[in-house]
Amino acid sequence: MPAPHTLDGWYVLHDFRTVKREAWKALDGHTAAAVMRDLRAFIEAELDAARARTASFGAFVIAGGKADLLFVYMRPTLEELNDVKARFESTRFADFTDRAYSYVSVVELGGYLAKPGVDIEQDEALQLRLKPPVPNMRYVCFYPMNKRRVHPDNWYMLDEEERRKHLIVHGQIGRQYAGKVKQIISGSVGLDDWEWGVTLYADDPIHFKKLIYEMRFDESSARFAEFGPFYVGQQVDHEALTQWMMTFHG
Amino acid sequence: MPAPHTLDGWYVLHDFRTVKREAWKALDGHTAAAVMRDLRAFIEAELDAARARTASFGAFVIAGGKADLLFVYMRPTLEELNDVKARFESTRFADFTDRAYSYVSVVELGGYLAKPGVDIEQDEALQLRLKPPVPNMRYVCFYPMNKRRVHPDNWYMLDEEERRKHLIVHGQIGRQYAGKVKQIISGSVGLDDWEWGVTLYADDPIHFKKLIYEMRFDESSARFAEFGPFYVGQQVDHEALTQWMMTFHG
Amino acid sequence: MPAPHTLDGWYVLHDFRTVKREAWKALDGHTAAAVMRDLRAFIEAELDAARARTASFGAFVIAGGKADLLFVYMRPTLEELNDVKARFESTRFADFTDRAYSYVSVVELGGYLAKPGVDIEQDEALQLRLKPPVPNMRYVCFYPMNKRRVHPDNWYMLDEEERRKHLIVHGQIGRQYAGKVKQIISGSVGLDDWEWGVTLYADDPIHFKKLIYEMRFDESSARFAEFGPFYVGQQVDHEALTQWMMTFHG
Amino acid sequence: MPAPHTLDGWYVLHDFRTVKREAWKALDGHTAAAVMRDLRAFIEAELDAARARTASFGAFVIAGGKADLLFVYMRPTLEELNDVKARFESTRFADFTDRAYSYVSVVELGGYLAKPGVDIEQDEALQLRLKPPVPNMRYVCFYPMNKRRVHPDNWYMLDEEERRKHLIVHGQIGRQYAGKVKQIISGSVGLDDWEWGVTLYADDPIHFKKLIYEMRFDESSARFAEFGPFYVGQQVDHEALTQWMMTFHG
Amino acid sequence: MPAPHTLDGWYVLHDFRTVKREAWKALDGHTAAAVMRDLRAFIEAELDAARARTASFGAFVIAGGKADLLFVYMRPTLEELNDVKARFESTRFADFTDRAYSYVSVVELGGYLAKPGVDIEQDEALQLRLKPPVPNMRYVCFYPMNKRRVHPDNWYMLDEEERRKHLIVHGQIGRQYAGKVKQIISGSVGLDDWEWGVTLYADDPIHFKKLIYEMRFDESSARFAEFGPFYVGQQVDHEALTQWMMTFHG
Repeated sequence: MPAPHTLDGWYVLHDFRTVKREAWKALDGHTAAAVMRDLRAFIEAELDAARARTASFGAFVIAGGKADLLFVYMRPTLEELNDVKARFESTRFADFTDRAYSYVSVVELGGYLAKPGVDIEQDEALQLRLKPPVPNMRYVCFYPMNKRRVHPDNWYMLDEEERRKHLIVHGQIGRQYAGKVKQIISGSVGLDDWEWGVTLYADDPIHFKKLIYEMRFDESSARFAEFGPFYVGQQVDHEALTQWMMTFHG
Repeated sequence: MPAPHTLDGWYVLHDFRTVKREAWKALDGHTAAAVMRDLRAFIEAELDAARARTASFGAFVIAGGKADLLFVYMRPTLEELNDVKARFESTRFADFTDRAYSYVSVVELGGYLAKPGVDIEQDEALQLRLKPPVPNMRYVCFYPMNKRRVHPDNWYMLDEEERRKHLIVHGQIGRQYAGKVKQIISGSVGLDDWEWGVTLYADDPIHFKKLIYEMRFDESSARFAEFGPFYVGQQVDHEALTQWMMTFHG
Repeated sequence: MPAPHTLDGWYVLHDFRTVKREAWKALDGHTAAAVMRDLRAFIEAELDAARARTASFGAFVIAGGKADLLFVYMRPTLEELNDVKARFESTRFADFTDRAYSYVSVVELGGYLAKPGVDIEQDEALQLRLKPPVPNMRYVCFYPMNKRRVHPDNWYMLDEEERRKHLIVHGQIGRQYAGKVKQIISGSVGLDDWEWGVTLYADDPIHFKKLIYEMRFDESSARFAEFGPFYVGQQVDHEALTQWMMTFHG
Repeated sequence: MPAPHTLDGWYVLHDFRTVKREAWKALDGHTAAAVMRDLRAFIEAELDAARARTASFGAFVIAGGKADLLFVYMRPTLEELNDVKARFESTRFADFTDRAYSYVSVVELGGYLAKPGVDIEQDEALQLRLKPPVPNMRYVCFYPMNKRRVHPDNWYMLDEEERRKHLIVHGQIGRQYAGKVKQIISGSVGLDDWEWGVTLYADDPIHFKKLIYEMRFDESSARFAEFGPFYVGQQVDHEALTQWMMTFHG
Repeated sequence: MPAPHTLDGWYVLHDFRTVKREAWKALDGHTAAAVMRDLRAFIEAELDAARARTASFGAFVIAGGKADLLFVYMRPTLEELNDVKARFESTRFADFTDRAYSYVSVVELGGYLAKPGVDIEQDEALQLRLKPPVPNMRYVCFYPMNKRRVHPDNWYMLDEEERRKHLIVHGQIGRQYAGKVKQIISGSVGLDDWEWGVTLYADDPIHFKKLIYEMRFDESSARFAEFGPFYVGQQVDHEALTQWMMTFHG
């Protein structure tokens, strides 16, 4: 059975971090503030690249104990993702964080979105979806997922028609949240431990819960979805991140 | 199939901690006592907020080696949960603890509890359940759980009528423990790694065991419940927490 | 289906420890010996409580690398278990150990053992089984377990008659080891991550292997038992523990 | 049922490493550069052995947080793999890395590739495939995998004809990527925790995703493949590795 | 159904270790050499006991990153295994290693091997198999395993005749490797986390792969075997171990 054709955009790194409390609090307040000021250069470079449409970037404070921070990076190539990983690690700020979780993927759209006779590279709407800016919304939700391959619920053994039918229903639920939840799907087959990463953005985090819960009753999730860890957080600019880090510092 | 409608209240953070024995015991007794006194300000602020009904808070000593302490925080928004996380980390006390486990969720009630024609915001009884104080009971039990989605026991593939039937039986067992066990259900679809967190409170911990064991023979648990780790502990005020920490200190 | 009635006795903490080799061996021999002498007071207090029948206590050296030591504590309440946890941590000895595994449970007997018309509190034989001393036998074996709830082997969906039939066979195997193996079952539904803890005592550890292997061919284990980690060790008094620790010290 | 005959070549060690940020960044820039220069001798020795066709070697920068670096070593014997492990650990560079993951396997080809009447040792084409150089391509993808043995999808219970049929389809997909993706299969039954390691090389990493995704719809993957963790990275020579490490150093 | 009767010999500890690179390399070469010389006394004592047939012992360098070293100890009692664990930890050498994995078991033979009317204790051939020396072969392979108990592949629900039939086929494969692979089965029901430990010895490690792969197509493995981690390594005497450790030291 042929695999669905996909359109693939920018490579994505979700980099979850935990604050190293001991080291961070051992700094005096002036030094801690200086570390945050130094981070501004790194963030500004990312934002400049985002404004130039050569990259995307977002920063988040994550809820709960699994992680404290999330940085989302998008780049045209894996080398560039590796480069930004190294550059983040080179900052003084990085010394006060540990890696908590990470995810490598590539922005993915359904191949059916390619308009016949139109060069994808020239389709501006598609290009925006393949190289998406991080939405300017207050909250983020991230989770990786698989389609199940366990008898009798084996997604990859369904015929194309069945899969299409499932995805149509799935998509209808998503559309009910249009305007409330913005979703960026990235594929990670061959790149990381699950098949997809799902990143949702919303101005009210209760929409994450309601959307995902509603989808769970849809057969394509109920029978075929396997989920990894879930992370939820608030988007922060450099100032809000600094404020949170200084509250943490005390 | 439409998902059940839910009413969602305050966001909840369960923050489980382990005492860093080496660092804690390295303090001389006066300093250890001072660290505990400093913590009082943090706890009092939480209790003030709870009395003002803008937050809920509870502190617990956990049994066994998986964790030593549990702090339960409830807030109207995720930002406030992130803020209280940072403020706890900023205390001197936090330096003597490590994160052992955590859970992010939001208080959840069945949508059927909303009375027709009544504004939920004006329904005081509902508001109290959506923004519940931590019960003044001696013991706590916490565990996260899922509804199973594995053929042929797939909760999300049941029709509404079947699910309702199961939940009625389930509820009847719970009601037999009315007065003995107080239960707060919080939903975590999209927020953390399981679908719900269950927090039970009782004056005798044997009721936790008897209630959960009884439910296990109920078909909705027997066939459809998947459980995460279980934690049990005793509720403590600042004085009892201090006493336990000083016993630990020696 | 009603859950089987249980009789519940003392709360139990199994506290598995690993020796911190570096710290322990960094002590000079005199100091190491002094640390062990200090531990005697803690152990004697436990033994005094055991003699007074207000608690039970046992100490063990565990085989293999998963843990080095096991301390078993029993108490009437969870608070007392929390207290003894803190008091152990306060000893100098504790500084040279890390937590390797732990288990919280409560001694459990079948409700059918309660004699009609007899107050359980006055039934001395039952009281001894609900508040059991640690048997004076040379070896210990501990493992947690669940009854399986996976279709078609779902223990909790069996009718009462089927469960009773299984348990009778199971009990018959156990009785063949009467005198050789002493078994203490403790329930942990709602208290820890499995449904039961099983602690076996014997003067020859081969009986653990033979008993459990024999039971595995019994349908109630073959189809319905799920096992956690297994630990085996030798019982030690303060003197034998000291000797082992000093051998380790070198 | 007889097992398929295999041809086995060089033993392979995949050694994934994480940079120890704190130690690495604590070096002044001159010392860091000296550490990288020292590593050149180790890498050159590997490349010399590769040129002499007595070993194979590749170095990679890995994307995401699971690992930073991958070194692939191939040798005729396990002793030689153990020797190169020890020699890598003896470098100064190794002090600034931790082990993140590793995999031990042996290059494996289907026994049907042996030509009747031809001594395998004299079949140069086969020898090249059994002792393969690391391809000179820009990207690497590694993952371990099993064939499933869970009823009703038990690969090892299929008859030979069925297995052959599946493998033919599987091979046809692979051949569509000839020139784009070079695949080295190594067997690890008895050597490491999965049955095979798969190492893919390509000049465009999107081919990894497309190839593996396409194969997932092929019945031999859909029903019978179980996958371990996935790692993706870029190939680096000593100069590019040094540049990345110095970017990390800052 | 009665469990198969087993004959049980010496208790076995597989102790896998990782070298603590930082501490080991921090030693100057003379001190490192002295640490290795000190280890000779420990190893010689083990070898003396082995020659006296009161114990068995083997040392191995393990391939890959999961462990560096393996020490195999056999003793008549668990106390003696605990004693040798403590004595190893007391060596200076132990300070430069961490525990990576371990396994506790007891050498196990089929009860049918006991000859009617012959005292097992007097059957020299059996005694040699129950208290086996570590074979003088160049390579070792270790893995723990279970017999599956998942419907419909539940080994423990098979009748005796079916199990015997499976084991006969299994044994026939093993016998094809007679002289090439020497296998020591040890039972660990009630002693460690799996039901058996399998230790294979060979002069060519490819035989491990071929034997285990062949067995996987045998129904008793295909349907009923569950495998834990696999470790492979080379046997070393004190001299070869010292040489490897000094190569690591640099």
